[in-house]
Amino acid sequence: MLNQKRLERIRSRMREMNLDTLIVTDPDSIAYLCEVLIHPGERFLGLLIPARGKPVLVRNALFSAPPDPALEQVVYTDTDSYAELMHQVLQPCRRLGVDKTMAASFLLPLLTDHFAEEIVNGSPAVDQTRACKSKEEILLMKKASEINDQSLAELKTYIRAGVSEKQLADQLAAIYRKNGAEGLSFPSIISFGMHAVDPHHMPDDTVLQNGDEVLIDVGCIYQGYCSDMTRTYFYGTSPSEKLQEIYALVLQANQEAEAMLKPGIPLCEVDGRARQIITDGGYGPYFTHRLGHFIGRQDHEFGDVSGTNRQLTQPGNIFSIEPGIYDPSAGGVRIEDLVLITEDGCEVLNHLPKDLEVL
Amino acid sequence: MLNQKRLERIRSRMREMNLDTLIVTDPDSIAYLCEVLIHPGERFLGLLIPARGKPVLVRNALFSAPPDPALEQVVYTDTDSYAELMHQVLQPCRRLGVDKTMAASFLLPLLTDHFAEEIVNGSPAVDQTRACKSKEEILLMKKASEINDQSLAELKTYIRAGVSEKQLADQLAAIYRKNGAEGLSFPSIISFGMHAVDPHHMPDDTVLQNGDEVLIDVGCIYQGYCSDMTRTYFYGTSPSEKLQEIYALVLQANQEAEAMLKPGIPLCEVDGRARQIITDGGYGPYFTHRLGHFIGRQDHEFGDVSGTNRQLTQPGNIFSIEPGIYDPSAGGVRIEDLVLITEDGCEVLNHLPKDLEVL
Repeated sequence: MLNQKRLERIRSRMREMNLDTLIVTDPDSIAYLCEVLIHPGERFLGLLIPARGKPVLVRNALFSAPPDPALEQVVYTDTDSYAELMHQVLQPCRRLGVDKTMAASFLLPLLTDHFAEEIVNGSPAVDQTRACKSKEEILLMKKASEINDQSLAELKTYIRAGVSEKQLADQLAAIYRKNGAEGLSFPSIISFGMHAVDPHHMPDDTVLQNGDEVLIDVGCIYQGYCSDMTRTYFYGTSPSEKLQEIYALVLQANQEAEAMLKPGIPLCEVDGRARQIITDGGYGPYFTHRLGHFIGRQDHEFGDVSGTNRQLTQPGNIFSIEPGIYDPSAGGVRIEDLVLITEDGCEVLNHLPKDLEVL
Repeated sequence: MLNQKRLERIRSRMREMNLDTLIVTDPDSIAYLCEVLIHPGERFLGLLIPARGKPVLVRNALFSAPPDPALEQVVYTDTDSYAELMHQVLQPCRRLGVDKTMAASFLLPLLTDHFAEEIVNGSPAVDQTRACKSKEEILLMKKASEINDQSLAELKTYIRAGVSEKQLADQLAAIYRKNGAEGLSFPSIISFGMHAVDPHHMPDDTVLQNGDEVLIDVGCIYQGYCSDMTRTYFYGTSPSEKLQEIYALVLQANQEAEAMLKPGIPLCEVDGRARQIITDGGYGPYFTHRLGHFIGRQDHEFGDVSGTNRQLTQPGNIFSIEPGIYDPSAGGVRIEDLVLITEDGCEVLNHLPKDLEVL
């Protein structure tokens, strides 16, 4: 059913942005608003939110949705014309907002047919609402991270010489399912040895050897909400002195960034604190990504912890704190938790130990 | 390395479409052209193809690509501005083509900053090239379908009372891997009993019972290329007379559509033939989707077998033929093969029997 509270928050932001109408096309945003999750593939799916009156859900007949008195539904088929469909459902207006991910094939006809004097990215109206989680959402995200903690703890018992990255990834998927998760937030990253230097390495048939490091960046979905955590372990023998130094710096960056969190902090300052620690340690050029990203129904949601984001932290924000150093001459280390901004501070959602550990 | 032959075919279509520049953003199209597969998530990735001169690959520093003398590469970081990046790499032009899936957040700034007098959907230049597979691609797709045939044949031995839809889906994933596939073309559809009436049902914990039907719509990826096939079986006892009638109609529609295939046939006529058979049988309203879709590096590629597509079949086209009847009072049946248009006819890529079978 349409969530009137969320709709009101979005309409209030629409007024601030002077939007007459907003077309939401992100399936997760549509599910957030009206509890209908449809992945339409290449077909059009849109929730049209006028400034006043009932929102309109436009969907292909292939995908079903329960009737909802608060929502008008317009159903089309594969043989209908998109342009005619839009003329049927969308009143010409002055300032039209569209979702940031709306595909060009659906956006360009709106421009050609002059549906609005101005078409702008209207996603912030939805994204900033989604970025402040409700109590119910927070409970689900805590549970997702609890399952993530427990599952990685169980996976550790499978880490031994001869196992391959792919085998560990498969094992983790089975553990997640056993623990009540419904799937992965994203394809698991499991990197042995120098694979850890590539932040986005995909598991392959490489087998674990004595002396390897083991970087594990994984997350699961619980009732539609994502978790995401990274730990870096060492197998068999202690890491080199240089890698120990790198580990200590990354851990310090993670801990000091988490320690400063409370409402009202510019996100760029959080990134800056972690980056300063790593730069002062001499590894600045090897911290090649932003410090974190927001998360919720999607692993990467709008909002990030980066040098360019001047937005302030707000209660209900949930994002990752994941400093990393990737030095091709030594190895790669990343340590990541999810954190929740509370009314007066912050709560770290992951509780798996972060101290350097040789398995 | 940049595939000059494919680039030339695309540029020839760009000339037909009067495009001065084309921005390709689809990761699979970029991989098709320059053998670099990057999934950039929310970050910008683009291959800029000017009418003349070197194409330019624009990528975030987080993603790597080998040097290629035929390709200019521009690398940006998370702190760079997208608008400035575009001013650096894109010359203002008269008619600019963009990919059909280009996200609004990347397209709208090009409009605001007047990069072109006209911005149009330029995807057909790439899509129509991708729709005609090369000999190498055809070999890979045949192998992907061969693995699909073999794997579904093996999966059949696991179909017995008490097994759940999810368990069968997991089992199939393991069989695919054993047989050399690298993943799924799409989440497997495994539907017991009346679940078969929903064409897009997702496997759940429902267990198989005597008298159920079993609809299996699955595909795997082999060296980057997809397979896709559907078979509908019956478990334990023969289906009702009505369901037998439905099965016979769907099979006839599948076989007659395949029998008419050769170069030069309007795709809408292929859809029309199958639809006529089902309509004449009295089930027209229950055949709720198009007859088929093109396939290759993605499960659903540009091009379909639908009532509105007047394009002619061409040698090298590979698409699905998948008629279905979904009757809530009886059950759902779909039978799907992939077919390849050859120089003088057609080759069906799936060889698993299609006659009604009680397991």
